[in-house]
Amino acid sequence: MTTITIIGSGNMATAIGTRAAKHGHTVELMSRNTEKAQALADQIGSRATVGTFGAKPAGDIVLLAVLYAGAVDVVEHYGEALAGKILVDITNPFNADASGVVTTPGNSVAQQIAVAAPEGAHVVKAFNTIFGGVIAEDKPVDVFFAGDSAEAKARVAAFLESLDMRALDAGALEMAHALEWAGILLVGLANNGAGFDIALGAAVL
Amino acid sequence: MTTITIIGSGNMATAIGTRAAKHGHTVELMSRNTEKAQALADQIGSRATVGTFGAKPAGDIVLLAVLYAGAVDVVEHYGEALAGKILVDITNPFNADASGVVTTPGNSVAQQIAVAAPEGAHVVKAFNTIFGGVIAEDKPVDVFFAGDSAEAKARVAAFLESLDMRALDAGALEMAHALEWAGILLVGLANNGAGFDIALGAAVL
Repeated sequence: MTTITIIGSGNMATAIGTRAAKHGHTVELMSRNTEKAQALADQIGSRATVGTFGAKPAGDIVLLAVLYAGAVDVVEHYGEALAGKILVDITNPFNADASGVVTTPGNSVAQQIAVAAPEGAHVVKAFNTIFGGVIAEDKPVDVFFAGDSAEAKARVAAFLESLDMRALDAGALEMAHALEWAGILLVGLANNGAGFDIALGAAVL
Repeated sequence: MTTITIIGSGNMATAIGTRAAKHGHTVELMSRNTEKAQALADQIGSRATVGTFGAKPAGDIVLLAVLYAGAVDVVEHYGEALAGKILVDITNPFNADASGVVTTPGNSVAQQIAVAAPEGAHVVKAFNTIFGGVIAEDKPVDVFFAGDSAEAKARVAAFLESLDMRALDAGALEMAHALEWAGILLVGLANNGAGFDIALGAAVL
């Protein structure tokens, strides 16, 4: 059981925070909107706390549960406060009709965050191929992740497994772009008959 | 049970042809290398036949089981012989180290094939998120597909289901690019711990 920090107070922050608390983790919430963060902390219960937006997070694992367009700004705003942290990018940089992504190969949001992050921080892409509603259901699901630091990836994988998720390593951080496209695929499947109660995964045969 | 035509005589042609024959379909093989096609037909058995490369295929569903770089050339070579056919693009346009694809959004191989194909032909992307070895094992697996013709997609979905595969519609043909990246994701997972006996899928919860 660890302390994890979630920056954000929207649907994904709610879903991941609730599931993490349910599995015994201490959750710290940080948001520009402190009232919203406090309301979410109250909703999550389990000793969830609210930190000051921009201050040093309590958790070693920091989930950036903000919209993709604001993720780099948030990391720059925190600056050195994120030194040594594991930054988990969960964003989906979809275009307007979710037919594609607004990023390009080599320039995924996760890679942009890695450039903006302070020294000693490590970025891991995860959680973007699973709907918030499915996370909230607390059922076993697969979660893909990618990153350049083996140690950071091992920490994130352990966290995922503790949430009753199967953590599947997709490779180096450059694979974050493939995961961004996997987010598009997930929405495409959901919109074309599979519905939104699905999660991408890898059947191991 | 239908007749399907496979253009190609490599690993994917072997895997899909063998599985199709096992499930009662009549398989026609076409290859520039007629000897190789004949050897594969003999191996598949089940009344598999060899057609003339470039001639009108016997099947309504024509699988382009060739390397991505040659797919458009093959379609142009066939020309009007493919009129009215359902062309199934199974290619993976990987770059040299499988860290990305050589195509760009809106210009997936499937979309390039659609431009090159004669009038009345319909392109469906499928089979590129599953390893040949897994297809050959004949176990139930998920197969994603995408295309612009509802009728062609329904025909391909029925074919997939007849092979004991669950056919999952990802949307319009523009989604083929997301599927190309899903191919990269599949290989990334395989190379980073999951092994090659896997298939991408969507858990329906």
